This record gives sequence, structure tokens and C-alpha cells, in this order.
Amino acid sequence: MNTIEYIIKILEEFGIENIFGISGCYNSFIIDSVISNSHMNWINCTNELNAGYAADGYARINGYGALITNYGSGELSAINAIAGAMAENVPIVNLVGIPSTEHINSRSLLHHNLLNADYQTFIDSYRRVSSFCALLTKDNAKIEIDRAFKIFSKEKKPIYLAIPEDIAKMEISDKDATYEWMSDEKTLNTATEKIAALINNAKRPIIIGDILIKRYNSETQFKDFCIKSGIPITNFVMGQGIIDNSVDNYWGCYFSYFANQKIKQYIDDSDCIIAVGTINSDFNSFNFNESKEIKKNIAIYGSYLYINEKKYDNIKMCDVLSRITKLVEHRECNIKQYNNGYDNNEPQNAPINSNFLLSRIQEFLKESDIVFVDGVCLSYSIAGMKLPNNINIQSQILWNSAGWATPAILGACSAKPNSRAILLTDNDTHFKTCIELNTILQYGYKPIVIVINNQNTSQNTQRFNFAKLARIFDGEIWATKVTTEQDFDKALNVTRIMNKLCYIEVILEQNNLAKQVQDIIKYNHSDKNNSVAEKSKEEKTFNYVLTNNAGSFGYETTVHKTYKDLDKLFNTEVDDG
Amino acid sequence: MNTIEYIIKILEEFGIENIFGISGCYNSFIIDSVISNSHMNWINCTNELNAGYAADGYARINGYGALITNYGSGELSAINAIAGAMAENVPIVNLVGIPSTEHINSRSLLHHNLLNADYQTFIDSYRRVSSFCALLTKDNAKIEIDRAFKIFSKEKKPIYLAIPEDIAKMEISDKDATYEWMSDEKTLNTATEKIAALINNAKRPIIIGDILIKRYNSETQFKDFCIKSGIPITNFVMGQGIIDNSVDNYWGCYFSYFANQKIKQYIDDSDCIIAVGTINSDFNSFNFNESKEIKKNIAIYGSYLYINEKKYDNIKMCDVLSRITKLVEHRECNIKQYNNGYDNNEPQNAPINSNFLLSRIQEFLKESDIVFVDGVCLSYSIAGMKLPNNINIQSQILWNSAGWATPAILGACSAKPNSRAILLTDNDTHFKTCIELNTILQYGYKPIVIVINNQNTSQNTQRFNFAKLARIFDGEIWATKVTTEQDFDKALNVTRIMNKLCYIEVILEQNNLAKQVQDIIKYNHSDKNNSVAEKSKEEKTFNYVLTNNAGSFGYETTVHKTYKDLDKLFNTEVDDG
Repeated sequence: MNTIEYIIKILEEFGIENIFGISGCYNSFIIDSVISNSHMNWINCTNELNAGYAADGYARINGYGALITNYGSGELSAINAIAGAMAENVPIVNLVGIPSTEHINSRSLLHHNLLNADYQTFIDSYRRVSSFCALLTKDNAKIEIDRAFKIFSKEKKPIYLAIPEDIAKMEISDKDATYEWMSDEKTLNTATEKIAALINNAKRPIIIGDILIKRYNSETQFKDFCIKSGIPITNFVMGQGIIDNSVDNYWGCYFSYFANQKIKQYIDDSDCIIAVGTINSDFNSFNFNESKEIKKNIAIYGSYLYINEKKYDNIKMCDVLSRITKLVEHRECNIKQYNNGYDNNEPQNAPINSNFLLSRIQEFLKESDIVFVDGVCLSYSIAGMKLPNNINIQSQILWNSAGWATPAILGACSAKPNSRAILLTDNDTHFKTCIELNTILQYGYKPIVIVINNQNTSQNTQRFNFAKLARIFDGEIWATKVTTEQDFDKALNVTRIMNKLCYIEVILEQNNLAKQVQDIIKYNHSDKNNSVAEKSKEEKTFNYVLTNNAGSFGYETTVHKTYKDLDKLFNTEVDDG
Repeated sequence: MNTIEYIIKILEEFGIENIFGISGCYNSFIIDSVISNSHMNWINCTNELNAGYAADGYARINGYGALITNYGSGELSAINAIAGAMAENVPIVNLVGIPSTEHINSRSLLHHNLLNADYQTFIDSYRRVSSFCALLTKDNAKIEIDRAFKIFSKEKKPIYLAIPEDIAKMEISDKDATYEWMSDEKTLNTATEKIAALINNAKRPIIIGDILIKRYNSETQFKDFCIKSGIPITNFVMGQGIIDNSVDNYWGCYFSYFANQKIKQYIDDSDCIIAVGTINSDFNSFNFNESKEIKKNIAIYGSYLYINEKKYDNIKMCDVLSRITKLVEHRECNIKQYNNGYDNNEPQNAPINSNFLLSRIQEFLKESDIVFVDGVCLSYSIAGMKLPNNINIQSQILWNSAGWATPAILGACSAKPNSRAILLTDNDTHFKTCIELNTILQYGYKPIVIVINNQNTSQNTQRFNFAKLARIFDGEIWATKVTTEQDFDKALNVTRIMNKLCYIEVILEQNNLAKQVQDIIKYNHSDKNNSVAEKSKEEKTFNYVLTNNAGSFGYETTVHKTYKDLDKLFNTEVDDG
């Protein structure tokens, strides 16, 4: 068995069946090995960044993903996608095909090099955005590969392997290594007993669930814990859908000051916050402050946890949750849902506004759907919905790379081709990566693509006809552009009977923002003349971010007026009353 | 004057008028300053990689360029373009808007961060692909900015400045720094006297010119030196057009064993090679070996030179050339052109093959055209042409990032909107970045785009209708798809009267390679059964590269068969006779 076959055998063990990338001059030998393996599929994307996003989408649904890039220009084009996976804890192996050891050692000035022909250059660029990087040599190949996949299994973040052609073809010991790791039993006992005691003695405990529960494959254990404990549950924005909305003690998404404010009040008064897999970032938790709040209570992560700021390491989230489920006493949750989602409206022959749009999408979603959401505005919109059970919502609002979701849905479709996959995106973000529809069509996937065109006449897309985009691809696609509520309703119905990729461009009333976003901006604006000193640091941070992000929220009238005209925009568009 | 105004004032001094990028949450304050400066234009691109390519195209034509990116996801998306500029010595300032110092210091988990909120992460990724990087602070801003632009002026490579919003708005001393540098007079005297003596005493001197002459703005001095000396002149591939083809002692492009072999023979027997601004890489110089050949003779670079392996530093290429022009004795060059370009053919009502295509393009090119060429195959094709005077050819075959030329022509058009700009690209490379046509149209530029579709049924583009692509853009574009020689001829004529962007998809006979490329592959193939031991190291390297690059040369039948089926492809497609 040679090195590349050994690596691909490990990928199989990790359950990876589809590998994304771009073929190039130094990686053909990797792609050939993928193709000649009957359990693997090679999916050639449009460009490396999109391939990275697709591998990310695949890993989010499948558990692990893989990307093949080419030395130099290829790998660097994908680095933003890998950094996003690093930020949001998505495990992707990046296999980089590089020139042979002989050329590396002699510093041959082959193309895709800087003039210095230093073959360590690009791995250096990757070090800060990967949990492990290695350039394989004759001596280190086996040991570095095994080390890489142990870290991969534990940290569930991107790893990077640069593979010279001669090393790929070198015979290697295929002696199995163990990549799976086990919780430290003693730590597990100590920590879970302390947690159970804290919970059982608490008067107002509350559970905050978030996206990292999914990354650490602990959804079942989390649900069992929620039901058994009966403790009120909320989630941060990225964690929307992490717990079935039908669970009695689920209270809806945490929106800080901006919606469901009783949840915030309950948390503020809580004597025991149980945070599970949370990402405490500006957009996701509204600056819910990790150092102040989370670590002082109970914070459970993938391979470690905090109790009152003390760290307990080498224990798995799923083991921790199973164990505390056994130890925790059930209590009755008397308060039911704070959030019942959007009110349903009958479609009219009228322009489409956000409230109608979102209520209709909410109604359209069904059990087992996979939904990829691009951008902060739409993520907040989804987070305000009442959702069917067992729905898989994926957004990317920590890394927040505009355009991520379109190629990511390719990866998601390939992971579960029999599930209904829905892409919710908007004109500006979709535009950056819309060309990847070509790959989706060529591999025969059939997501439902809903492009919300908020007519925010930004230069990039003001003259771009999205519905016509479908015509340049010679594949199985049904495309339409809708401007009225009734037509949007009809288009959604068509998707139910149409056995092909469905592409709906929704023309939204100009600058008609989603309700949740309106609430957030209204709050921010109504408060903005108060003394800054009165605001907490978190509020100030969020204000800062929000002000800088008016564009992302659909408030951008042109890219020439992103910043200076914000006040005017807020005044004219938002009802302060 | 605040920091960002100070930076923009310096950009003005460097002659930068158009700045490319993508607006984002942390860079609005930079873009606002650009827009409010009446000498500056802001060009908002489709995505960051393309914006980077556009800035590269602009800098190649204008001398210097600038890019504005956003912290995290934005800047990382552009890193491949910056690495390409680093490799090929294209000076681009990358201005990255980042969160305020307060957030940096407190490690606020704002979006576009990794979970660790370490604001040094992405600058670290950039360090290896930039000649200078700094994150500006209250204390270092003025000194680091001045240092950055001194390096920028001397090295003519990318520099990177991360600018927190508060630092951008901070008052700063606008005391002028001097960014220009002067040759060291003593070194200049010593070196040029030695060079002149070597040249004047040489029996078979030869001049090799290359692309770095353009980067160091020394074309006039190079031409004067060539004419005064009367020494035979050749150029490497990227240097095509560096010297007017009408100059008597110009012998055509150096193709090693593959064409114009008398040039190779002359160089091999030369007792004085004068290499000016050469890039000695696999594709560009056919492994013409720098350490063996160039440094042992005379090698003149932008700010230093070698004479017999001894380095002379801190002297400008233009000064060196001017000085030796004065000192060198004229000699008569009795041998005229080895290369007369492609034979012209009358267009027939027949499918288009490469020989016809190239002869027609050769005839079509005229003085002062700007031509951007994507990919190795087309670059070799252009290098085989006899060209009009004062033509500006730009290719990127060291970094060789597929798709570079389409956004780069946007930058080129913006630098010289009144020159005729021509983009020569092929289906696979163009596909990666074709969406940037939207920006070209929105800013009203009118390049002639020739997409050579060699029908190499690679998955990406087999079902993609390029000519239809024009229809999704609502701009001034004339698009056509031609399949016969006569129609291609007509289409070229239409471009002469059409005052809008012209887009011609040329359907080439399948796998019909350009003559130069056929020669190269034929040579390689006819030799491949010889003993490997007999081949020189350079030949082996080139074989390796060529074999791995069959795809780029149009030999790829599907991406599933890039490597294994090469022998078969060579056998069936190439006449060994």
C-alpha cells in the first residue's frame, strides 16, 4: 500500500465518500487514487474557494469532509474556506499535491512558486488556520499522517497535508493506527457529578444549546438531557434547530434584547447556566460574554468543559451529556414557548414583503429538510421561525464569508442526496459564488434555491438577472422570478412536483427587512442617542458591529454610501415609534 | 490629516488612481476616504480574488496598484492574487480594514475571527507572500507606513497594511517621507565599467530580455541598450513584446529545444550572456538554469545585478542600462530574425484549427494594444508570433493561476481606458472567473474577449455555453460564437466597428494544439523512450512538468483522466514522424 492509498483508506474509515477540489498539475496522482477507489467519488468544482465551501457543506452534514488542492495558487485560493471551517469547527482534510521531494530539495523554480522556490511558504500560510499541518517526507509520512488524523478526530477542525508525488507513491506501513479517542473516565466522573449537583440544587437553571453540539455529533444525547431534565432550553442563532421545537421546555432562540426578552431576563437571573457547544460571538450570541457568563457557570465543549471557570479536559461532550442525563433530577417546566414563529398570511396579489416571505418559508419547511442560510440577516430570520422537528439548519455567522452557502449546498446534497435541500440566500452574497450552480447541475443534485433579491441597488447586482442565470447552464433546472405573494406561493408549490433543481428569484420590496432584523435595528437606533457611558461594553460592541454591517442587513443603497449615510438610512427606513 | 488620508495621499504620489476591492464591515472607512478623494476611483469587484487579480492587472499597466479588503474572510480570499503578484513582482498595496484597537486588545469575538479572536492570525498568513506586513497601532502607524512604501518603491512587490478603524481616523503627522531611492553611484560605476568591458571583449554576446524590465520601468533604457550595442536579442516567454520586433538585432523568443533552435545554440556557445530582468522558471525559460548560466555571466535585476556570480546591490536597472549603453561599443548584427511568426492563411468555410487562429490573431494585433493571455498554452502561442511595435503582452506563467487574466483585464482597461485591450483565454481558465465580466460592463470598459474553446470536454465546461453568458449581464456587450475560419475573421472585423465589449467564443477543432505547443510535446514525446540518464536535469524537470500539465496544454479529455492516459493521448494526437 502506498502513502496516498493509506490516506484514502483512513478517509474511508472516517466515513468520507465524496471529495471536492480542482485538478491541477501536482495533484493528479491524488485524484487518480480517489477515482480508482470504488467507495469514493471525486467532485470537480469551479474554483478552489468554492470547492472548499463544498467540502465544508459536506462535512457539516456528513461529519467529516475532504478537499484536494494543488500546490501554490490552488491551495491559497481555498484558504478562506479552510479558515471558515477552522472558525466554525468543521473538520476538513486538505490534501495538497506538491512537486516531488527532489524538486523541493533542489528548490527548482517550477511554476506555482514564488521566485525563491521555497516549498515551505504556503504551508506556513496555512499554519494559523489549521489545527495541524505537515509536509510529508520519506521519514515522517506514516507518523505525521497518523498524528494528523488523531487530532482530526479529537478537535474536529481542518488539517493540512502537503504530499509530494514521490511520497504519495512510496510504499508505507498500513499498520492500523487508532484515531478515535476515549473520555478520561476519572475526569468524566468528577465533572459530571459536580455538574449534576449544581443543576439539582439550582433554582433557575437554563440550558443554552448551540451549533457545536452538531459538530460533536451529540444531538441525541443533548435531546435526552433536555427532556430528562425539564430545564428551559434556548439556543444561540447558529444553533437554531439543534433541539426539536416540539420539546415542551424549548423556549425559542435567544435574541438578547431584541426578541423573546423574557429569555434574556431568565438567563440574567439564572443561578445555573448550562451552555452546551456555544459560540459566543457578536452575531451569534449578541455578545453574550464567554469569560463573564459562560465559564462562571457550566460550559460543555467537544472535548473539555468548564465549571465555574475550572477546566476539565479530555472528556467528550456526548459522554458528559449521557452521564448528567442519568444524574439529573427531572423538574417540571411550567412556562411554554416564548416564540411561536411568524404568523401565517394568505398570499395576495401584492408585492412581497419580509413578513409574508418568512411566514411562507416557515410553512414550507418540513421534517428532515437540510437548510443552508447565507448571511446574518437571513440567519436571524430563520432563528425567529417555529420549525418542524429534525430539521438541519446550517449558517456561518461567526466566519460570515459572503457566498459560502451556494457551494456549501453542493456538498450537503452530495452527503444526503435523498434529503430535500434548501438554499436561502440573497442577491449580493449569492452573486459571489453563483457559478457553482454549474457543478450542482452536472452532478445531478436538485436543491431548492431561493434567492431573495432585496433590490439594494449595490453595484454588483443591480443589472444582474438571476433568473436568467439558469439559461447559461445546460442542465436540469427550473427557474422563475417572482414579484407577488401569490406567485411566490405558486413557485413553492411547483418545487414539490418538479424533479429538478428549482431556482426562485424573489423580488422583495426594497429595503424591506426581516422582522427580527427590524427589531434589532430599531432597538439599536432608538438607543443611539443615549449616553454611551450608560451602555454596557457588550452593547457598545454590538452597536459597533451593527453600524459597520448595515450593508449585510440590506440597508446598503449603494456601495458608495455604506457608512456615512447610515443615520439617514436608519431615520428614513425604520419606524422608531 | 488622519492616517487613512495620509496613506491615500501616498497612493496618489505613486500614481494610483483606481483602487479595487470589496466593501465589507470593517473597511468602509477606507473606501469612504477613497471615494471622497477626487483623484481616486473605487472599483467594487465581484469577489476578493478577482479584485486582487484586477489590482494586479492595473499595476502591470499602471506601475503600482492597490487593493482594499476586509478583515478575515475578505483578505484571505484575495491571498492567492497577492501571492501571484509576489511571485511575478507586481507591486500592490493591500489595505485591510480591521476592527478597532479596543477590540483587538480585548480579543472581542467579532465575526470574521477564528474562535481564539487572535487578531494577528491573518497577517501571519500574509507574511510569506508579501514583501512587508504591518498591523498599525497608535505608536507605529507613521513609521510603519513610511517604511512600507520605501520597500514598495524599491522591491516592487506586494505590501500589506492592516488598519484598525480608530487608527485610520487618528491624526498623524503628514510630514513627507521620501519613498524614491537612488542608485549607489560608486557601485554603479564599478559594475557598469566591468559589464561594458566584458561585453566589448566578448566574441558572441547575447542579450536575453524578460518581463522584469517592464516591472522596473526600464523598457526605454533596454531598447536604447539593444540598439546601441547591436548585440543579438532574445526574450523569455513572459518577456514577449519587451523589445520591438522591428529592431534589427531581435531574434525572436527563446524556446530552448523547441523552436528557433539556433538561438539556443548561440546561447550555448556564447561567451557573454547579458540577462536583463529574467525569470528563470520551468515554463518561462524552459529551465534555463539561473545558477549555472545566468549568474556566471551578467544578470541585471531591478535593484541589483550579478557579474560572474558576484552581486552588486542598490543599483537600479534603468541606471545600469543607461550607463552601459554609453560605454558599450556598437557591433553589426549580421543575422536577422530567426522567427517570422505564423504564416498567414486566407479564411475558409472550415472548422478552426490553431494555426489559422493564431495567424489571424497575429494579423489582428496592432501597435499599442494591451494583451492579457491566460495559461501556458496561449502564452507559448503568443510567444511564437511576430508582433507589432510597442505592444504590451502580459501573461502569468510563473504563478500560473488559472483564471487570472479575466479580472486582470478589468484592471488593465481602467489603467488605460483609451487603449485597445484584448483578453486571450480558454474555456477552462476563463470559466473560473468569467463572472467578473459583470464589473467590466458596469464600469463601461470595452475589451475584446476571445475565449478559445478547445472542447476538451472537461466536466466543468462541457455543458457551459459561453456566448450565452453575455445574456445574463444587462450591459453593453456584443457576443458571438464562431465555428468556422470565415466567421472568426468576420467577428474580428466586427470588433473594429463595435463600440462595446466584444466577446467571441471560438470553437476550436478538438485537441487541436497550437504549433509551438505541438513542437514542445512532439520533442518531449519523441525523446521519451531514450535513456533517462542521457537527459540533463533540466530536461528531466521539464518532462516532469510537462507530463503533469497535459491538461493545461489542452490534452485533457476529462478531468477523470488527467494522468494515466497521457501516453495514449500522446500516441493518438501527436505525429511522431
